[in-house]
Amino acid sequence: MTRWRLTIEYDGGPFLGWQRQGQGPSVQQTLEEAIHRMTGERAAVHSAGRTDAGVHALAMSAHVEIEKSLTEHRLREGVNALVRPHPIALLSAEPVPDGWHARFSCIGRRYLYRILNRTAPPALGRGRVWHIGAHIDVAAMAQGAKLLVGSHDFTTFRSAHCQSESPVKTLDRLDISTKGDEIRIAAAARSFLHHQVRSMVGCLALVGRGQWGPEDIKSALDARDRAALGFNAPPDGLYFVKAVYPGG
Amino acid sequence: MTRWRLTIEYDGGPFLGWQRQGQGPSVQQTLEEAIHRMTGERAAVHSAGRTDAGVHALAMSAHVEIEKSLTEHRLREGVNALVRPHPIALLSAEPVPDGWHARFSCIGRRYLYRILNRTAPPALGRGRVWHIGAHIDVAAMAQGAKLLVGSHDFTTFRSAHCQSESPVKTLDRLDISTKGDEIRIAAAARSFLHHQVRSMVGCLALVGRGQWGPEDIKSALDARDRAALGFNAPPDGLYFVKAVYPGG
Repeated sequence: MTRWRLTIEYDGGPFLGWQRQGQGPSVQQTLEEAIHRMTGERAAVHSAGRTDAGVHALAMSAHVEIEKSLTEHRLREGVNALVRPHPIALLSAEPVPDGWHARFSCIGRRYLYRILNRTAPPALGRGRVWHIGAHIDVAAMAQGAKLLVGSHDFTTFRSAHCQSESPVKTLDRLDISTKGDEIRIAAAARSFLHHQVRSMVGCLALVGRGQWGPEDIKSALDARDRAALGFNAPPDGLYFVKAVYPGG
Repeated sequence: MTRWRLTIEYDGGPFLGWQRQGQGPSVQQTLEEAIHRMTGERAAVHSAGRTDAGVHALAMSAHVEIEKSLTEHRLREGVNALVRPHPIALLSAEPVPDGWHARFSCIGRRYLYRILNRTAPPALGRGRVWHIGAHIDVAAMAQGAKLLVGSHDFTTFRSAHCQSESPVKTLDRLDISTKGDEIRIAAAARSFLHHQVRSMVGCLALVGRGQWGPEDIKSALDARDRAALGFNAPPDGLYFVKAVYPGG
């Protein structure tokens, strides 16, 4: 039996999300079925984060236990061949100690949110960005973002379906930058509440469009009430960038 | 009657190419039909470059003459609404003098070619990059690329279907850079032969993989014979970046 750490890229567009569900394709199920076809084993793939429908991953971390003896090369090539035509790529696989857990060992998560800010809708970026045609004041967004960094009760920015024990999280970074007509929001924390990044981005977009002042972010946070949420940004622009573990 | 300069982004994946054809969807036909639905006019859209099936454009330039009086805003919004669900975006429209011709007034064309160089196939980049799993020596590719810059008879790098009067072209730039696991090849010239960029990239990839030495690029060029071509790179990684005109 070997416990493997998997690093996975996927386009979230065609999936109902990471997690296996009865009603349609998920990233988890697609990977588990590929591994079953390779090994005959029914092994569960556990991830660092459970992304929603339409949310992408540049490098999701996960782990799985496999009885069959495999090389890294064989596991990677086999999974990549068997997940076709689904847009999933197993970037790497490495053996890890039994105690290593993709979710519970993880000490940091990074997300990226991409907004396309131009009048014309996306063509090449379709399903990969949130399109906002109206002018956005990036400096105002950045002011609002600063108010979210740190340890707060993020109840306002939490989905009703969130399973986290506590609504208090520490947001280490929420950096806003631009590249051409794209606005990029980079978020880092040990962990996030369900919908937290999309909820924060949705409110920051209201600030960028002038519908909220930067200080309204503080009021929303202080309200500790989901009803105070301005807007939940769509999944298309969200990317799970990476999971951080002790020692790398 | 107004002559409009159009700037267009598209994902080449679902199209048979830029040019209107009998057998299936083209970017030109999709735009012409949108304009017809807006105006009732059958106007031809002429472009700076006629990209092949699967080739993308970040900012193709084109022109069209329309009788109906329209604002830039109305033309852009109308076309963008009517091309749906095709992955085409009209980025801008501006009136130009009657003599302005997207193809004949163009004094420079820029292309980008993206190679994904990693073992795992692309997930988010599917259809948008050329995947090469084997190791590539980027420095060797760059050496080979230098030999192609300048004025040469590019017969070896020319499709049998090329309609250009002369096989002699002046390649102003062929720059190779890397970004993460991507190799990017930027090409600039007044004009290119049909398949020239893909043919050059295909041969440079042979150099990168060590199957050719950089000097084999020179031999292929000197042969002035299509049979001396090493390899034609796939369309997926090719992007028409922009067209240059006198005064901008």
